[in-house]
Amino acid sequence: MINSTSNKQIKNLVQLLTKAKARREQGLFVAEGVRMYRETPKDDLVKTYVSESFYEKEENRALLQGTELEIVTDRVFASTSDTKTPQGILCLVRQREYTPAQMLRAENPLLLLLEDIQDPGNLGTIFRAAEAAGATGIIMSSGTADIYNPKTIRSTMGSIYRMPFLYTKDIAAMQEKLKARGIRTYAAHLKGSCTYTEQAYRKGCAFLIGNEGRGLSDALAEKADARIKIPMSGEVESLNAAVSAAILMFEAKRQRSGGL
Amino acid sequence: MINSTSNKQIKNLVQLLTKAKARREQGLFVAEGVRMYRETPKDDLVKTYVSESFYEKEENRALLQGTELEIVTDRVFASTSDTKTPQGILCLVRQREYTPAQMLRAENPLLLLLEDIQDPGNLGTIFRAAEAAGATGIIMSSGTADIYNPKTIRSTMGSIYRMPFLYTKDIAAMQEKLKARGIRTYAAHLKGSCTYTEQAYRKGCAFLIGNEGRGLSDALAEKADARIKIPMSGEVESLNAAVSAAILMFEAKRQRSGGL
Repeated sequence: MINSTSNKQIKNLVQLLTKAKARREQGLFVAEGVRMYRETPKDDLVKTYVSESFYEKEENRALLQGTELEIVTDRVFASTSDTKTPQGILCLVRQREYTPAQMLRAENPLLLLLEDIQDPGNLGTIFRAAEAAGATGIIMSSGTADIYNPKTIRSTMGSIYRMPFLYTKDIAAMQEKLKARGIRTYAAHLKGSCTYTEQAYRKGCAFLIGNEGRGLSDALAEKADARIKIPMSGEVESLNAAVSAAILMFEAKRQRSGGL
Repeated sequence: MINSTSNKQIKNLVQLLTKAKARREQGLFVAEGVRMYRETPKDDLVKTYVSESFYEKEENRALLQGTELEIVTDRVFASTSDTKTPQGILCLVRQREYTPAQMLRAENPLLLLLEDIQDPGNLGTIFRAAEAAGATGIIMSSGTADIYNPKTIRSTMGSIYRMPFLYTKDIAAMQEKLKARGIRTYAAHLKGSCTYTEQAYRKGCAFLIGNEGRGLSDALAEKADARIKIPMSGEVESLNAAVSAAILMFEAKRQRSGGL
């Protein structure tokens, strides 16, 4: 039983929860809560930490069979948790790596290219909506929020384990690579020359979504096959990035399901 | 100049920022930041509070002409602000009241009925997306988060001032009232009997969106003219409430813009 906040493992969990750099260096991250524990592929699960009172419940012990386990006093557990009302279970998980090839395996890939999305909650919501829309992968600029941020992981509701993704230092080069592979790229842009519903997304395509405040960089937007806009009524200047991404991806899904 | 956190006005601002009850009793709320100040209708603006260093900048003083103003020391200002990096301007604003009649004035109203949406950020994002989609009003159950919560106001990006809304204790009765007025009601439901793209939303209609965790109550869902689902790929169990609302409203907008 771990009963001190100065325990090495506990200190490391706190590092992994709070510092992207620590996560990167160790190739690990922390997923919190029963739901995430259930969704974590057992091959990726390094170790599970539970609070004493979590472990006392019989139904929880059944859940934990076959897992390498550490039990932690409630007080120490609360000090590590990222949430206000911790459920009493944390998983130490190995990061996965995906390649562009894995995202292009599908007959008609549906990709997202995210440039410098900043809000961790937004990023997680995008992952969740992308999986629901049938996206085959998400490519992010290195300036995008860390997918392993605890808040992002929570917002993905488990999609982090099912949606192939990668970070790239050169997203413009990645865009060129996709185009060379026959993927049409569509830049979501406030000054798009056509409405998003006027394009056909049945074949392989990628939507480019820019930063919440600045939108897409010109470098990316200009090289896209088309700049598309989501028409807006009223005096709204822009949509939330996750909302924009979802509207575009679900339009692709609508068309791919046979909608006119 | 206000230089004490025990100043009556400052204490009241803190109450209004943190307590829905205080907002309700006084019929007032606080909007923060330059953008919100610009968007606040001058008729609704009761008073503006600025920090000393905000007031020192000439361009800011130009902005503030004609406003009833209080200058507050930076230290006291920081103690009231809801944000980590306050911009230095807070507006005390009168709450508006809207009637169902105002939402039904349009030829083909497009409404949202929200049942117990809990997340303040989600609620604001819904307002912003609703305005962009051309919605004519939002009706909320009394269990829905407070639209005047500072986080909600921020997420609306100003739509709070342009989107008619009201709270009702009896959302089922409101649904009946809408139906009686010829508005078709569509319940967003995981077990919907048809896909959302199979219905026509060109005439007056209302989308019912339920709580993030529980979804819509049976009482509401059963009385709707149709239960519609957003089909989901992968293993996603549900979509974020703001994402669902946006997908439905933008499908209505697509159809109303002449999309097939």
